[in-house]
Amino acid sequence: MSFVATILTLYPEMFPGTLGHALAGKALAEGKWRYDAVNIRDYAQDKHRSVDDTPAGGGAGMVMRADVLARAIDDVSNDTRPRVFMSPRGKPLTQERVRALAAGPGAVILCGRFEGVDQRLIDSRKLEEVSIGDYILSGGEVAAQVLLDSVIRLLPGVMGNVHSGLEESFESGLLEHPHYTRPQEFEGLSIPEVLTSGNHAKIETWRREQSVALTRERRPDLWQAWETRKNARSKGEKQR
Amino acid sequence: MSFVATILTLYPEMFPGTLGHALAGKALAEGKWRYDAVNIRDYAQDKHRSVDDTPAGGGAGMVMRADVLARAIDDVSNDTRPRVFMSPRGKPLTQERVRALAAGPGAVILCGRFEGVDQRLIDSRKLEEVSIGDYILSGGEVAAQVLLDSVIRLLPGVMGNVHSGLEESFESGLLEHPHYTRPQEFEGLSIPEVLTSGNHAKIETWRREQSVALTRERRPDLWQAWETRKNARSKGEKQR
Repeated sequence: MSFVATILTLYPEMFPGTLGHALAGKALAEGKWRYDAVNIRDYAQDKHRSVDDTPAGGGAGMVMRADVLARAIDDVSNDTRPRVFMSPRGKPLTQERVRALAAGPGAVILCGRFEGVDQRLIDSRKLEEVSIGDYILSGGEVAAQVLLDSVIRLLPGVMGNVHSGLEESFESGLLEHPHYTRPQEFEGLSIPEVLTSGNHAKIETWRREQSVALTRERRPDLWQAWETRKNARSKGEKQR
Repeated sequence: MSFVATILTLYPEMFPGTLGHALAGKALAEGKWRYDAVNIRDYAQDKHRSVDDTPAGGGAGMVMRADVLARAIDDVSNDTRPRVFMSPRGKPLTQERVRALAAGPGAVILCGRFEGVDQRLIDSRKLEEVSIGDYILSGGEVAAQVLLDSVIRLLPGVMGNVHSGLEESFESGLLEHPHYTRPQEFEGLSIPEVLTSGNHAKIETWRREQSVALTRERRPDLWQAWETRKNARSKGEKQR
């Protein structure tokens, strides 16, 4: 049983987009995931096929209608898959949430356009609002591709080497250490000596130190959370 | 003079992708931005056209070579555009950075694949590492589309209504208030009365209160920053 994504969008032609190439594209061709891009406009009922209307209370832009979206969502999601609404007002996407989604049957993903979506739709259909970051996009479609890309690489059999998923940024709660490869000399710069020492314990220690230092410098928020967990663990160990 | 994006990638066929449709696609067709997707592999020099090699010090995956990428970057970026590397180790993308990029001449964007990129390349070419969020993608291409989508909508003449860019999440430092539109009744739920009152001052106050409450509940980090700025402002006013 493969992961199934149902995407509600005004631009079904945007899919699979980036997901039709490289790792995700290969997984798609191999049936490790599949998708259905459903045009929200197919659920409009007036002769103009309207999906939006002016905001109650005034203001710029248009708002997507609750009734049209409800018909669309109800039609495609009579199952247990989470119903996600890509929105800058949502909970920031984390690698933890990505892993949980990858372990499940799929997702129904609503991509908004215009100024926003009628709040009664979000409330009544219990949509999980997910934000991919603190910036504004022209619509949810590229955000849905981000979400799906992050999930697809974790699906069983997609990544050639299982370890690749574990050593990276955020899986440990830290940013990843720097990487080096041949050539040994690049414009007078050498690969750090420790990495060519053959001493695996030293290499591990160096990489960990680099990760911690980089995280502390660039992302004090992540570093603080990691420190707190580390201290809680070592306290727990002492008490045993 | 329009915004020019030069994208260095192993998958030029992923572009324009989502950016070829809707708002960004229309702006592309109208010449409000343009792009060039350059295949990094064209800068490989051995007979296998290798762009990557095994990590120094061991470990899973492959690392993109500094020498190949340096040739690519040097060839396409003999101008003043910022050189951005999409990376989960980077500085989180903000709407403020998006606005600054949209006010500039364009960007050279490096999309990584595999385990990472040789650190000597990042250092020597002074790449700006930008992260779109705390999760791992299979490559930088979809992240580059996110970055460009957020920038393109702010380019002159792209959004029909200038106000749309100002009232949204993050532009004020707060999450956006809820939206409502017709129908007046949806499954027994009405549009909040204040919004149909016609009292614009009351509507503004209600929306602001909703924004503040939502931000405080969902994003204490943003709320705290907003509070701090607000207090600094009101202190400044009192001192005048």
